[in-house]
Amino acid sequence: MSLLVVGSVAYDSVSTPAGARDNSLGGSAMYFSIASSYFADPSVVAVIGDDFAEDDVALLRSHRIDTSGLERKKGKTFRWTGVYGAEDVNTRETLDTQLNVFADFSPRLSPEHRRSDYLFLANIDPDLQLDVLDQMDPRPRLVALDTMNFWIEGKRKALTRVVKRVDVLFMDEGEVRSFAGEANLISAARTIHEIGPKTVIVKRGEHGALLFDGGTPFAAPAIPLERVVDPTGAGDCFAGGFMGYLAASGDLSDGGFRRAAALGSVMGSFAVESFSADRVSSLTQQDIQDRFDQFTEMLRFPAVADGETLPWRSGRRGVCR
Amino acid sequence: MSLLVVGSVAYDSVSTPAGARDNSLGGSAMYFSIASSYFADPSVVAVIGDDFAEDDVALLRSHRIDTSGLERKKGKTFRWTGVYGAEDVNTRETLDTQLNVFADFSPRLSPEHRRSDYLFLANIDPDLQLDVLDQMDPRPRLVALDTMNFWIEGKRKALTRVVKRVDVLFMDEGEVRSFAGEANLISAARTIHEIGPKTVIVKRGEHGALLFDGGTPFAAPAIPLERVVDPTGAGDCFAGGFMGYLAASGDLSDGGFRRAAALGSVMGSFAVESFSADRVSSLTQQDIQDRFDQFTEMLRFPAVADGETLPWRSGRRGVCR
Repeated sequence: MSLLVVGSVAYDSVSTPAGARDNSLGGSAMYFSIASSYFADPSVVAVIGDDFAEDDVALLRSHRIDTSGLERKKGKTFRWTGVYGAEDVNTRETLDTQLNVFADFSPRLSPEHRRSDYLFLANIDPDLQLDVLDQMDPRPRLVALDTMNFWIEGKRKALTRVVKRVDVLFMDEGEVRSFAGEANLISAARTIHEIGPKTVIVKRGEHGALLFDGGTPFAAPAIPLERVVDPTGAGDCFAGGFMGYLAASGDLSDGGFRRAAALGSVMGSFAVESFSADRVSSLTQQDIQDRFDQFTEMLRFPAVADGETLPWRSGRRGVCR
Repeated sequence: MSLLVVGSVAYDSVSTPAGARDNSLGGSAMYFSIASSYFADPSVVAVIGDDFAEDDVALLRSHRIDTSGLERKKGKTFRWTGVYGAEDVNTRETLDTQLNVFADFSPRLSPEHRRSDYLFLANIDPDLQLDVLDQMDPRPRLVALDTMNFWIEGKRKALTRVVKRVDVLFMDEGEVRSFAGEANLISAARTIHEIGPKTVIVKRGEHGALLFDGGTPFAAPAIPLERVVDPTGAGDCFAGGFMGYLAASGDLSDGGFRRAAALGSVMGSFAVESFSADRVSSLTQQDIQDRFDQFTEMLRFPAVADGETLPWRSGRRGVCR
């Protein structure tokens, strides 16, 4: 089924403990669409400047991503410069943000894009996210949203308005706590369920993600990697694997969401293995299958079978005080 | 089978975001022996002062813990005062340490204790850990060791000597990196396997633990809790559940270690729900079984069955460049 992403396409200059790369293809919509393209038929809506390389459009097209919603405007493409900590690659500092053509981004969806079955509202101004959602007709089967602290602090009202209307919310741990106003993660997830989203995916970087759906959460660990190059885009590739799987399988059951989170972990793990989308854009099905098997193996353990009991100490009574 | 722990018994004064408690029962050997007592027959070897309350000995005995190795000496019991961060309960600061009778701790094992099948060397001076291991005859079926940064920095040589001879090493993430001299966790675990321990358990606090055994690691997530009171003792209760299960089941297979880690997570989760051992010392089998079921549910997801494939996009070729 059709999958639409509205977000950013950018040129990033990134420095990490593993090295540095200037002016390389980035942006949430870019990462998301490539990661999801292994499963679904993504369309991307974003704005690019007149400096945007034809080769980069061609890369997206080579993944059979519908780029008809890639609006080219006079001016420069959105540019971001950041550095990741030497001690903790999970902490990053933004050195420079040049919004450029992104400053006046006002997505107008084509009639076809409005009918998309699955929608991912990548991290942009919540007013724009709301505007996109209003343009959808009929309402998509599933809407997911990603955001960041900048909007939680600066546009909480607008953000809450759009969050109310989505099915799946992606946030990192600190954002969930800050948005819900709850230090405890379980309470915070519950508060967000009450606002609207049935599914809350708490991203924890190298510690993986937790999927809250009102029942026992699903713990989707990050796959430990020998080579961590650049975490940029990992969250969007997680979302791409997640939504790509759901759009491709149409399976919105509890098990479907859990498997989607597994594929999210898998696609996120590829994202961090290179700068830009070098790795995530050059995968074989076997690469993905192998890492999915590795994820499966990470979670495998012998549960207690029917009729089996844990090896309780003999004669141990229930409560000992 | 018999299970011996050599470590500390202490009185802790702890302050956390949830409250404070002075002079309450603490120490690695205390937490470990209570947690393991639900499954195995633990014996504890530790030193206490003449201020140590009979009620606290009685608490251990009520769990049918063999306290014949609890040596009472003239002087005060080991005392620790610490405070946990308001922002991040995983960070703690030691305000005061009074070694007292622990300063001259020199464990002499009884003939029976020397024959224990399973041994946990809790976090004490590596020279003492080595001395205990030398007293064992025959060598136990399984030896596990816990340590801390203080010994990695101050007694690396002695620590390495004892680590060489153990089967299971417990360390937190930073300790593993520091001990192995490797920033990458997979490389660090490999370095430690080469030193000796076949199993490395990397503790990550509220993010759970990773079990490295040379193959794909097992990700044992921490169980999210509504009420986090005091993290003191969580690592020792994890070790208690882990070793208690192995000693009780005798199952040293790959699956046995994974289930042991699951029970480690379960027992660690109870430890943080109260000050001291209030919670972990008053559990029913049903409490433990319920949380084990919750752990199982956290890891459940539909793997790809034989003959099934992931929903690849039709016509998607292997590599798209």
